[in-house]
Amino acid sequence: MNIPDDLRHMRHALSLAARGLGRTWPNPAVGCVIVRDGRVVGRGWTQPGGRPHAEVVALRQAGEAARGATAYVTLEPCSHHGKTPPCSEALIAAGLSRVVVALGDPDPRVNGRGFEILQDAGVDVVTGLCEDEARKQQQGFLSKVTLGRPMVTLKLAMSWDGRIATSSGESQWITGPMARRRVHAMRASHDAVLVGGGTARADDPTLTIRGLGVAHQPVRLVMSRRLDLPLDSHLAHTAGEVPVWILHGSDAAPERVSAWTGLGAELIEVPVTQGQLDAEAALQALGARGLTRVFCEGGGALAASLLSAGLADHVVLFTAGLGIGAEGRPGLGALGLDRLADAPRYRLEKIERVGPDALSLWSKLS
Amino acid sequence: MNIPDDLRHMRHALSLAARGLGRTWPNPAVGCVIVRDGRVVGRGWTQPGGRPHAEVVALRQAGEAARGATAYVTLEPCSHHGKTPPCSEALIAAGLSRVVVALGDPDPRVNGRGFEILQDAGVDVVTGLCEDEARKQQQGFLSKVTLGRPMVTLKLAMSWDGRIATSSGESQWITGPMARRRVHAMRASHDAVLVGGGTARADDPTLTIRGLGVAHQPVRLVMSRRLDLPLDSHLAHTAGEVPVWILHGSDAAPERVSAWTGLGAELIEVPVTQGQLDAEAALQALGARGLTRVFCEGGGALAASLLSAGLADHVVLFTAGLGIGAEGRPGLGALGLDRLADAPRYRLEKIERVGPDALSLWSKLS
Repeated sequence: MNIPDDLRHMRHALSLAARGLGRTWPNPAVGCVIVRDGRVVGRGWTQPGGRPHAEVVALRQAGEAARGATAYVTLEPCSHHGKTPPCSEALIAAGLSRVVVALGDPDPRVNGRGFEILQDAGVDVVTGLCEDEARKQQQGFLSKVTLGRPMVTLKLAMSWDGRIATSSGESQWITGPMARRRVHAMRASHDAVLVGGGTARADDPTLTIRGLGVAHQPVRLVMSRRLDLPLDSHLAHTAGEVPVWILHGSDAAPERVSAWTGLGAELIEVPVTQGQLDAEAALQALGARGLTRVFCEGGGALAASLLSAGLADHVVLFTAGLGIGAEGRPGLGALGLDRLADAPRYRLEKIERVGPDALSLWSKLS
Repeated sequence: MNIPDDLRHMRHALSLAARGLGRTWPNPAVGCVIVRDGRVVGRGWTQPGGRPHAEVVALRQAGEAARGATAYVTLEPCSHHGKTPPCSEALIAAGLSRVVVALGDPDPRVNGRGFEILQDAGVDVVTGLCEDEARKQQQGFLSKVTLGRPMVTLKLAMSWDGRIATSSGESQWITGPMARRRVHAMRASHDAVLVGGGTARADDPTLTIRGLGVAHQPVRLVMSRRLDLPLDSHLAHTAGEVPVWILHGSDAAPERVSAWTGLGAELIEVPVTQGQLDAEAALQALGARGLTRVFCEGGGALAASLLSAGLADHVVLFTAGLGIGAEGRPGLGALGLDRLADAPRYRLEKIERVGPDALSLWSKLS
């Protein structure tokens, strides 16, 4: 095993896999590189919608050159017969002599069976190369499989003092155009964009990706217990074009349910806890529908409920160069902390400048 | 004129000057390097308390080697007879043939006279090399001379959402020990550390520099309109050792004034505007007493009054990896902004990681 070459090819496969993030749900975004005699003969990544799988794409490209070659795959090849034959069998049929895999697939239908099938067929199997990077990349899929809910990235864009608007509600603009552009790019790597009902009412957002040449659009999610969302909104007008899913409580008015259903939205009823939609139950419902990566853009009450329930896996914080003052509108609602030690702590992953604003990326400490 | 060499020597002089920041008030922190035949023969920086001046220190070190040499000075050599003869005359007397200066001194007693004296004596004078860097370094001194008040650096250390304590007042610890250590280093480069009366009461701070091997201590400033500060506090107990200046209103109880005076504190009466000590008047009083660089560490009301009066030249923001929630105590008080466009905007100068926390440095856009 030539470690530097293996590493290089696996990193290549990981970079291919990243192209699928946000577009392959309910399937994982996987990358595959096929190498024969040191030459890359096939490259593939999971296609939009989750099929074909990365291995199938790469095998097609490699053709006869796959015989005796090595495949680098970022996630354990599947072993179950679904809509198509399993990738582990496809790799065997193509005559691969060696398969290097970054990470095992905990999906109960796979979970080591992919490795077994390959080994039983005499294929040399290596696992665990770039496992940490692959686990990070697969966090959404792993969260769905092991916790039943998608990974959640919480975006906060605030003044130094955590405000998102003046007391009169003026909020345009706190962060600059480059930060907003960056937010659109972040939306593109998530399966869905989530906002609370208050934000949907106040901002009338479109929640689509604009100006980046991205054809794909994430699912648009709104949490609105009473479903009291205006029917002459951007979301309502475009619900037939780009999916809108609304999570609501059992006390939503039936005429509202039928109006939104008529517009093309998908309605998901979620239990209510302490007067609010239960955040854990809501995310479980989204996981059951196949979502793996959700990007939450507020408002403050929803952000607070995700944080206090320990459901925000990542926080993306844009800080603009101004103070708004204590009478301004807070970007984060009440958390109900009794003691400072109870606050969930996050690790600083990265810090950078985005135009005039500061961007810091934080991950939940487990 | 050899630009790369001149640049190198001036940068050397600037780095020497930086050693004096926070220790030379009411005088500017200046650096001087004397170079003969490409060899550094003298180095000096303004000594603690402001004397001797950088040029005098460097000339003493150079001795006879100064004859025919070039001096690099970060600020125009002084021209007025004060406690000692002016530096411009000392440079002439030492036989310097060339003087390179970064920045003119706007002090009305100098303001070009230093250059004139040198030129009249036949010395070759070059000005404006590294002028921007020198102006930045001299911002405190320039502020005192041209605006009558010290430069103000405002420190904010908060959660993502701009909170400095839970609703019950628990505040230890939000940022980590490395951030606190960094704050002590920042104190050391300022002439004085300033807090509001509320912070002095709530935190009972010492406001000294600890753990960095710094012998010098900045003046400790408290803004307390009614002078209702506990007499059994760290500040009270140490007022005889490290200077404490208290800015108060005319309605402070006379027995409090005499108690604090008796403890060794210097009391400064400041006019009251809208129920608060007038921040501009307070800073003018500090400028009149010679302070050039003030480091404000809160609390929220004082920070807000400095920001809304446009008096915070720099903001140092430490962001800890947690949310505290809207019921937590805000790190910045009310600013009374009517419109977002009225908020003073700051330029992001630098962003870095300090242990587990993010640090961003911001400068007021003029």
